Amino acid sequence: MTTETDQSTDRGARADDSFHVFDTTLRDGAQREGINLTVADKLTIARHLDEFGVGFIEGGWPGANPRDTEFFARAQQEIDFKHAQLVAFGATRRAGAKAADDPQVRALLESGAPVITLVAKAHDRHVELALRTTLDENVEMVRDTVTFLREQGRRVFVDCEHFFDGYKANPEYAKAVVRAASEAGADVVILCDTNGGMLPAQVQAVVTTVLADTGARLGIHAQDDTGCAVANTLAAVDAGATHVQCTANGYGERVGNANLFPVVAALELKYGMKVLPDGALAEMTRISHAIAEVVNLTPSTHQPYVGVSAFAHKAGLHASAIKVDPDLYQHIDPEQVGNTMRMLVSDMAGRASVELKGKELGVDLGNDRDLVGRVVERVKERELQGYTYEAADASFELLLRAEAEGRPRTYFRTESWRAIVEDRPDGTHANEATVKLWAKGERIVATAEGNGPVHALDQAMRAGLEPVYPQLAKLELVDYKVRILEGRHGTESTTRVLITTGDGSGEWSTVGVGDNVIAASWQALEDAYTYGLLRAGIEPAQ
Amino acid sequence: MTTETDQSTDRGARADDSFHVFDTTLRDGAQREGINLTVADKLTIARHLDEFGVGFIEGGWPGANPRDTEFFARAQQEIDFKHAQLVAFGATRRAGAKAADDPQVRALLESGAPVITLVAKAHDRHVELALRTTLDENVEMVRDTVTFLREQGRRVFVDCEHFFDGYKANPEYAKAVVRAASEAGADVVILCDTNGGMLPAQVQAVVTTVLADTGARLGIHAQDDTGCAVANTLAAVDAGATHVQCTANGYGERVGNANLFPVVAALELKYGMKVLPDGALAEMTRISHAIAEVVNLTPSTHQPYVGVSAFAHKAGLHASAIKVDPDLYQHIDPEQVGNTMRMLVSDMAGRASVELKGKELGVDLGNDRDLVGRVVERVKERELQGYTYEAADASFELLLRAEAEGRPRTYFRTESWRAIVEDRPDGTHANEATVKLWAKGERIVATAEGNGPVHALDQAMRAGLEPVYPQLAKLELVDYKVRILEGRHGTESTTRVLITTGDGSGEWSTVGVGDNVIAASWQALEDAYTYGLLRAGIEPAQ
Repeated sequence: MTTETDQSTDRGARADDSFHVFDTTLRDGAQREGINLTVADKLTIARHLDEFGVGFIEGGWPGANPRDTEFFARAQQEIDFKHAQLVAFGATRRAGAKAADDPQVRALLESGAPVITLVAKAHDRHVELALRTTLDENVEMVRDTVTFLREQGRRVFVDCEHFFDGYKANPEYAKAVVRAASEAGADVVILCDTNGGMLPAQVQAVVTTVLADTGARLGIHAQDDTGCAVANTLAAVDAGATHVQCTANGYGERVGNANLFPVVAALELKYGMKVLPDGALAEMTRISHAIAEVVNLTPSTHQPYVGVSAFAHKAGLHASAIKVDPDLYQHIDPEQVGNTMRMLVSDMAGRASVELKGKELGVDLGNDRDLVGRVVERVKERELQGYTYEAADASFELLLRAEAEGRPRTYFRTESWRAIVEDRPDGTHANEATVKLWAKGERIVATAEGNGPVHALDQAMRAGLEPVYPQLAKLELVDYKVRILEGRHGTESTTRVLITTGDGSGEWSTVGVGDNVIAASWQALEDAYTYGLLRAGIEPAQ
Repeated sequence: MTTETDQSTDRGARADDSFHVFDTTLRDGAQREGINLTVADKLTIARHLDEFGVGFIEGGWPGANPRDTEFFARAQQEIDFKHAQLVAFGATRRAGAKAADDPQVRALLESGAPVITLVAKAHDRHVELALRTTLDENVEMVRDTVTFLREQGRRVFVDCEHFFDGYKANPEYAKAVVRAASEAGADVVILCDTNGGMLPAQVQAVVTTVLADTGARLGIHAQDDTGCAVANTLAAVDAGATHVQCTANGYGERVGNANLFPVVAALELKYGMKVLPDGALAEMTRISHAIAEVVNLTPSTHQPYVGVSAFAHKAGLHASAIKVDPDLYQHIDPEQVGNTMRMLVSDMAGRASVELKGKELGVDLGNDRDLVGRVVERVKERELQGYTYEAADASFELLLRAEAEGRPRTYFRTESWRAIVEDRPDGTHANEATVKLWAKGERIVATAEGNGPVHALDQAMRAGLEPVYPQLAKLELVDYKVRILEGRHGTESTTRVLITTGDGSGEWSTVGVGDNVIAASWQALEDAYTYGLLRAGIEPAQ
C-alpha cells in the first residue's frame, strides 16, 4: 500500500489512507428517479460533501455526457477541496482495442481527476451477454486499462459490477477479475452488489473468502433493494473491507444506494472508528438537508440520525419517562449528529408532552393542570379537522399562548379577501388579490398582483400591513407545502398548507387547513405574520 | 411447545405455529409522527393485514385509550379473520398489587383477544428510574401477570422492552426476566431493541447467547434508528428467533420499526421459508400502498420491493442491456411481489428507454431513429422547464403520440378561463370558475362553482365538455399532488401539479407546470381529459 499512500499524499489525500469513505452521490446517486442535476447543482453538492469530509467524491463519467465533462473542468477551478479527492468514473477499454487508444479512457485522463474508478464486469454472463466478448478478453481489458492509467500517474479503483451475482455463478472467474485489477495496480477493488439482492450474512461470507483468496484491498458498493444496504456495507467492513461507497441520503437507482449518513454514523459512533474530520459528524443533519434542497427532494423525515423525526417522541408513555432521563429513550445524543430531540404534540402524547413542549418553547404553563388539559383538548379537536402541530411549531405556540394568556395574540383582523386568476386568450396569466384588514383600529384595503393567487394574497397582505408593522418587511416565505389529506377525492379533498417563514435570524412553520387551497394558505399566512410580529417583540393591537 | 401449539390451534391459529409473523402496525406503528388512526382506519388496516396473511395483529392497548377498546370490540364482531389472531397489548401489573386486581390487566382480558402481549422491563435502570420499583418486584410482576393471564386461558407473549441496552448494562438481570416470563408460561419472549441502536452482528451475538442460556422461545422487535431494523430482524432469525415483530411500511416512532414487507420477502424469497399463505407475496405491493392510503401517507416511492421505483431503470447503460436480459439487472422478478419493471424517461435514459417505453405503452416507434431522437429532445426540453414524465405516463404518451402522429391529439381548445376565490366577511368562501373552450367547431362558455378554485375549474370544464363528449362523465379525479420545485422561494416557486384520473377500469397520471398553481392544474386537467378520451377510443375533433 505504501507507494499508493505516498502518491495519493502527493495529490493531497488525507494523511491516513487506511480507510476510505467514498461518495458517489454525483454519479450513482444521480440515477435516482426524480433527480436531475445541473452542473451548478453538482458543484454545490461537491462543496457540501467536501465540507462533510468524505475522502473521495465521484463526480460522474467525463466524456459520457457533456455535463460531467464540464463539472470536472469547473470543479477543479472553482472548488478548493479541503478533504476530498475528485474521482472520475469510467469503463475499461473496448474489446480488441488498446486502452491508450480508447477515446473513453482518454476522456478520463483529460478530466484531470487524480483518481479514476473503472467499472469492470465480474459476472461471466454479463461479459458474454452485455459486453459481448470472451471471458479472457474481459480480464485483459481490466489489466490493460488499469496498467495504462497507473502509468499515467493516476490512482485507480476498480468497481466489480454485479460481483456477488457473478461470484454465485462463477466464483473462480469473479476472483480472477479481482486479481487482475489488483495485480495491475488498482489500489482498491470494490465488490458491487449492483442488483442489491444480498443480505448481510452473505456479504460477510463472500468478502471474507475473496479477501483470503486474492489478498486485494477490498471495498463495498451496496444497493438497497433488500433494505439492507447499510447493514451490507457494515458486514463487508466486519469482513475486512476498508473502502465504503455510499451516497448522500441513500440516493440511487431503484431503491437507492447505501446511505452515507447512517454508515459513517455507525462507523464513528458504534465502531469507534475515526472516518471524518473533527466536528464533521455534528454537521451531518444540516448537510443531509442541504443536499436534499439541492437535488430538490423533500428530506426524508424518517431518515436514521438526520430525519426531523429521528429523535421525535410521541408516545405519552415515553414522554413521561423522558422527563426522568432522555438517555433511556435515545440510542445516541442527537447533538452528536447535529439533530435535536423533539416532543410531538398529538392526542397520543398527552399532558407530559405538552408540558415538555411548553418548556421547549419557553412558555410557562406553571403547574396549571387545567391549562395543560385545555391545550390537549384544543389540539385533539384541531387535529381532527386536519391540522398538524407536529409540523407547525409556530401555530402550536400561538395556540398555547392563546390558552395561557386567555386570549389570542392579534395584531390584525381579516374582514375579507378575494383572489382572481385569469388565463387570457393570449396565454398570459393575471393574478390579482384584494384584502380588507383591520389593524390598530384602522381599516386597510390593499390590492396586489403576484405570480400566483397565494403570492398575490401575500403581496396584498404585506402592502396593507407594512405601513402599520414595518417589522414585516424582514419576513420572507422560505417554503410552501400543500398536502391533500384525502388522496382518494382528487381536487375535492381537504387541503393542508404548511408555510415556513424566515426573518433572517430564524425560521418558523405555520399550518392552515380547509377544503380550499387558497383559504388554507391564507390561514397559514395569518399565523406566519402573527408569529413574526410576536418574535419581533411587538405588542398585540387590533 | 406442544401444549401452546395445541391451545393456540383451539383458538384457530394456523396449523403451523413454528414461526410467527407478528404485525404491530396498529399499536407500535401508530406511534409514527403524522399517523393518527381512527377506529375505522384500524379496522380497514386489520383486514388488509389478515388478507396478507400475518399470523398475529396487535391491535392496540385496550383500556389505555377508548379508541383501542372500541377497536377490539368491533374487530371481533366485524372482521372474519382468515389467517391472523388478534393480539391485545398491555403492561405487567402495578408494583405491590395482584395481577388479578389490576384494572389495566383486567382490561386486557375484557378485550376478548385470544393472545396478549405484555410489555416488561428488562433493563435494570428502567426498572428503578421509570418503573420506580425493585428489580425483584419487577420479576414478580412479570411472573404473576403471565401466570394469571395463562390461568385465564390466554396465550401470552412478553415484550422485553430495552432488552439489548439492558443486556449490555446487566446481562444476568435481563436474562432473569426472560426466564421468569418463559417459566410462567409465556409462549414467546420478544427481545426488543426499543431505542433502535443495535447493529446486526450485536443482535446475532445477544440472541444466540440468550437462547443458549434461557432455552426460551425468542422473538425480535427491532426499531430502525441505525437503518438496520430489517437486517437486525434477519440476524435474530439467523440466531434462532422464531417470531418477528414488524409494521407495514416500517411505520413506527422516530425512524420507524422493522418493515414487514422486506422482512417477509427476505424470508420467503431469500431464505426459502414459507411464512405467508399461497399467493400472498404477490399482493404485497398492492397491500403496502393500500395501507399507506388508509394512514394517509404517500407511499414511499423508494421502499424495497414495493416502491414504484423499486424496479424502475433509469440509466441509459442499463436500459440498453435490459433489452438483452432483464434478469441481469433485477435481484428478483418484480411480479413475485406484485410490482412491475418500469423504464424511466429522462435525459439520462436516452434512446433505449424511450424505445422500451414506447413498447410498454403500445406505441409503435418502428425503428424510426429520428422520431426517437425527437422524443428524447422534447423530453429533455420539457424536463428543463420542470415537467416530469417519470410520474406522468399519460402526459408522456400524449407527447409520444404527438411526435409519432405528427400532431397532438386535440379534442378541445382552451380560449381562456378565470377562477375567483372569495373569503366573505361572514367567513364563508365562494369559488367560481368560467371557462371558454372550443370543441367540434363550437364555442363553449361554462361557469361552475366548486369547493376550491381547481375544483371549480374542473366542474366548469366538465359542464362545458360533457354535452360534446358524454364519455367524460365516467372520469373521476382520484389524486391531486402539488409540488413546489424551488423550496427556497416560498410562494414564488415554480409549481408542478400531478393529477391522477380514473374511469373505473384504470387510472392515469398527468402533469402540469407553471409559476401558478391554478394554471399548472389546468394544464394537468387538459391532459387528463384528453387522455381519458383517447382511452375511450374517441377520434380527435376540435
